[in-house]
Parts: sequence; C-alpha cells; structure tokens
Amino acid sequence: MLKAFQVAPLSNELDDDIQHKIDFKTKPPGSLGGLESIAFQVARIQRTLAPKLERAQMLVFAADHGAVDKGISAFPQEVTPQMVTNFLAGGAAVSVFCKQHNVALKVVDVGVKVDMPDHPLLSKRKVAYASQDFSEQAALTLDEVNQALAAGAEEVDACQEVDLLLFGEMGIGNTGVSSCMMSAMTGQTPEQTSGRGTGLDELGVSKKAQIIAGALKRAEQALNKPMGEWAPWEVATQVGGLEILAMSGAMLRAAELSKPFVVDGFICTVALLFASKLQSAVTDYAIFAHQSDEQAHQALLQHFKAEPILKLNLRLGEGSGAILSYPIIKSAVVFFNEMASFESAGVTNAT
Amino acid sequence: MLKAFQVAPLSNELDDDIQHKIDFKTKPPGSLGGLESIAFQVARIQRTLAPKLERAQMLVFAADHGAVDKGISAFPQEVTPQMVTNFLAGGAAVSVFCKQHNVALKVVDVGVKVDMPDHPLLSKRKVAYASQDFSEQAALTLDEVNQALAAGAEEVDACQEVDLLLFGEMGIGNTGVSSCMMSAMTGQTPEQTSGRGTGLDELGVSKKAQIIAGALKRAEQALNKPMGEWAPWEVATQVGGLEILAMSGAMLRAAELSKPFVVDGFICTVALLFASKLQSAVTDYAIFAHQSDEQAHQALLQHFKAEPILKLNLRLGEGSGAILSYPIIKSAVVFFNEMASFESAGVTNAT
Repeated sequence: MLKAFQVAPLSNELDDDIQHKIDFKTKPPGSLGGLESIAFQVARIQRTLAPKLERAQMLVFAADHGAVDKGISAFPQEVTPQMVTNFLAGGAAVSVFCKQHNVALKVVDVGVKVDMPDHPLLSKRKVAYASQDFSEQAALTLDEVNQALAAGAEEVDACQEVDLLLFGEMGIGNTGVSSCMMSAMTGQTPEQTSGRGTGLDELGVSKKAQIIAGALKRAEQALNKPMGEWAPWEVATQVGGLEILAMSGAMLRAAELSKPFVVDGFICTVALLFASKLQSAVTDYAIFAHQSDEQAHQALLQHFKAEPILKLNLRLGEGSGAILSYPIIKSAVVFFNEMASFESAGVTNAT
Repeated sequence: MLKAFQVAPLSNELDDDIQHKIDFKTKPPGSLGGLESIAFQVARIQRTLAPKLERAQMLVFAADHGAVDKGISAFPQEVTPQMVTNFLAGGAAVSVFCKQHNVALKVVDVGVKVDMPDHPLLSKRKVAYASQDFSEQAALTLDEVNQALAAGAEEVDACQEVDLLLFGEMGIGNTGVSSCMMSAMTGQTPEQTSGRGTGLDELGVSKKAQIIAGALKRAEQALNKPMGEWAPWEVATQVGGLEILAMSGAMLRAAELSKPFVVDGFICTVALLFASKLQSAVTDYAIFAHQSDEQAHQALLQHFKAEPILKLNLRLGEGSGAILSYPIIKSAVVFFNEMASFESAGVTNAT
C-alpha cells in the first residue's frame, strides 16, 4: 500500500475578512491582479490576517533514470551528479538565485546513480542507484516508491521554522519520465505530453515519444489496464521517478502542515498531479511559479486552473522558476501586511 | 522648439561575446528564456561582460489634468495629492515594494493642482497647477512641455551613481490622457486606446472615449491636421500631460547617459512612445516590466515588439509593476555574472 497522507481542505472562515482587507488597501479594487490572489491564498493557508513569509527553504530532489540509456535526453546521465556538485558549489542557476534572495538551498539525493561525497548542503537519502529502465520493466518497487515519498515528507518535517517551501529537481531524463507519468495519469498520448526537455530537436522529441509509448504499452500489458485507469501506486511503480515522487511526498507533507509551497515547472507540476491523486486538497497549498516552455506544461496548468506568476519561457528546472517567483510571492504578503488602507491614509475612495 | 536630446543606438560590438557567455553557462542554451534577453540587453547598454545593477532609483512623477472635471476617471482629483502623501508616508504599493527591495523612492511634483508640503523624498518641480482641459483648449504651452521634459531629465542627472532607473506616475485621469496621446501619435481611435483605467465601468469607458474624441477633434481643427500626423510638439501641447512628458524626458536622458530604465504600465509606455518620436533609439534602453490589464497596453507593447517580464493583470500604475519586475531584472544580471560555465564547473555539455 502507498504511504498515507491526510490533507485538510482549506477553511473559508476568514475569506470575507481577507477580501475586505485586500479591497480597502489604497488602490483600485483588483488592481494588483495576480498578487491579490496570492495574498488571499497565503492568508487562507495560514488562517490569519497577518500572514508571514519570513523563512523560505529550497529543496532540490535529485535522481537518475534507467530509461536514459534509450535516449530520452539531450544530456548524458553523468550530468546528474555533475549538476548536483554544481548546486552545492554555488554555480548553478538555482544556487545563484537562492543566494540573491537569501533562501537556504538543500539538495536531496534520492536516487543519483553514483555516490555523492558529503557536503553540508546535501541530504543523503538514496533509495536506489537510479530507477530501472521503464521501457523494459517496472521502474520501481512499491517499497522504493514509499521510501521516496517518505524522504520528501521527512525533508519537509525537518523545516519546522520555514514559512514557505520551494521545490526543484535534477535528474537527466526526468522530463521524459514526467511525460510518461502524465500520460499514465491522464490518458493523454506521449505525443501530447512530450516536449523538447533540455533541448531535443524535433527528431529527438519524436524518438522520446516512441520510447515512452513503448513503456506505456509494456505497462498496460503488465497491468492489463489502459493508461489513464491505473491506480496511483501502479503509475508510480511502473513509470515513476524517485525525485518526482519525493517531491510529491514533500508537497503532501507541506500541505498536512498547512505550509504553502511553490511549484516550479513541468516536472514539479507532474509531481503535484501525482500528489493530487492521493489527496486532492493538496493543490490548495500550491503556488504556481511559472508556465514553462515545455509544451505539456500549459495543458497541465489548465487542468489545475492555475495562473502561474511568470511566463518567461523558462525550461531549466532545478527549481529555478520557483526561486525567481519568490520575490513576487513575498510582495503579495508585503502589500497585504504593509500597505495603508483608504481610511488609515486619508485617501478618498472611488466615486 | 522642443528640448533636444541625442540618444546613440547601441553598439553591437560585444554581441558575440555576450551571447557566448550566456550560452556556456551550466544550463541548456536558451533555457533561462526572458532572463537571457534581459542579461544581453543590460550588458549591451553598459558595454561590458560584467554588468552591474547595484543601485536602482524609483522616480514617480505626479501631476493633475484639467480634463478630469469632464469625468475621465473613477477617482476625484483630490486623490492625486492624497496619494503623493501616501507615497511619501510609505503606505502605497510602490512604497512598500521599494522598501522590500531596498530601492530609493523619490516623488517628483511636476503639476499637482495644490502645493505639497516639503518632504525629504519629494522633489518640487511644479511646472503648472495641472494642465488645461484638453477638451476645451490646448493642454499645455510649449514652454510648459519643455519644462516638464527638462524636469524629468534633471531628475535623472541627479542620479549619477544609479545603475538602473525605474519610472512611475500618479495623476488622476492620466490613463485617459495617455489614451488621447496614443491616439494622437498613432491615429488609432479613442475606442481602441481607451480602457477601464482605475476602475471605470463600460459606460464610463464609453463616456471617456467620447471626451477624448472631442478633444482630438478640437485639436485637429486647431492644427488643421488629422491625428496621427501631428508633430511631437503638437501632440504634447494639445493633449499632453505633465507627468507623462516628464517621464519621456527622464527616459531620453537615461538613454543619453547609457543607463537602462524600467517601463511600468500603459501610461509609462505612452511616455516611451512619445520619447521614441523624438529619438527612436531610446527604446534600446527600455526594459518592459509588465503587460497591464489596460487593453491598449497590449497593442502598444506589440508596436515595440516588447515581451514584458510580468503578465499579472496589474492596473495600478505608480511604478508598481516596474518595482515588482526589479528582482527578476537583477536575477538576469546575477546569472550572467555568477553562474558557473560548463568548463569551470566540469559539467558535460549536450551531446
């Protein structure tokens, strides 16, 4: 059985008070657009008219994927540990943006193919040395899936003092694995869920879609059920990825603890889709950072009725979009807490 | 004659080196999307491979408009000085966001209808106590137009140590004045250039468009030329606004000094349109903060082939969109300066 989570839907008890506070700030009603929605959401999650976003934590989950040998990425597998080292050394995009915003960064190894040396920013929670090649066999055992979910949840448990969690990922091939998981959960074809990833050309995307189609066909035969109808544990074991499932576990635990979390790009949003299959209320706690350049991401965001903060054509992953959206999320709470009201500022309201 | 500016087009001398530096960062080429364009632009403007955005300054220009009495805004004119006081007291959106990002804020009074008390953050450069009602007569004299342009330019001159300028505005009725200026410069009808402003309903927008149409008709008769064919000085004197023209002057001077500047929403973009009629190269120095909810803004952004950083349905003005985009602009320079290259990090590049 899959590890159990229990996420409570948000209470609407304070909704009127929250909206009133937003509407009587010295600005035309609604004029702060998307910022007003974020302020509303954070106040609702924290159940307060004085929300707080003082400490944020970036957790980047890393793992490798057996199917990479088949050719689903523009980069070779050795890049996963190389990039983990780059994160830890402070040279990656997510590293420099976290430093810019004074946000702590931790990398969680749940399945990198090689052993990583100790580092104060590295959490070693290796579940396996990569998943199995899903085009040949089930990617993970149920025990491995549960270990990955638990690893994510425990990393969030370790963030007691944190008001906001940001999630990212690293794993060569994980755009393809995410496309495969998305197809398995939604029934959409691999052509619909596959995109360029880190830089495949048209032929590469087509080849990737074929590999994913083969994996789905294999799993459909093993499960004797068409994709779109598999149980979550079947999706996870047949075609899951360890860092993706760890993110799902982290999201579910954040929601259990009533902490808002920031969803990065396509891969992270697939992790949310998986989490929502276990506890649908988890999406109430999700702040969508950006709409990425990966084509299936847009469809997925529409599924969640999400209006992401940024549309900058990012397609890097790592949590880079999440951390770029962070100052905007903070601005939402800043305006809610610090702006004057018409009354307090002595400003005449609209006629 | 209009005050003269001399803006040099950007040199493309460093283009290859800048692009090379971007492409060899540890990320798939192009994967930082819009951030890569901003990094490229700032490096080009500053003519260096080590651009610097350490000191930013927000200048908010304020003025009143004679045509407000005719009913072109949802708010009464007394709100202009009330909001200036709110900016100075730290209670407005632009105030709290500037504080969040440690950006200095200055309010420049170029035409508020009443005298404002002294304040350390207020620069008193009043050209007139509001413009004249453009539905009855020319809004400004040529001398007033030149004083407004000079006021903006001189405020930028006072920012020697600043690497990045952000512009905003306050002036009840100035969305309507901007629509009128846009029609005058582009020949588009008032229906095409008018929107809800701070919160007019459909009837209000239609009434505003009629007032603007009347003003344009009056000016066409006075000038004996159809709109779209007026010289810049004719646009400015017939239907201009003092804070809008001051922003144009500030933009032109920033470009003369090779400083990038951030364009806020619709009104600020109309100021850029006016500036570009004087010196077309000024647009090379403009970073577009956001696409606002004001309908004509999108058309104007397309005219400039601009891809703004944010699309958050903001429609507040004040420079609020500019300051919200500021951390993203900084992130562009941060990744360009601080990220490791494939070589320096020992990461394998794409196959």
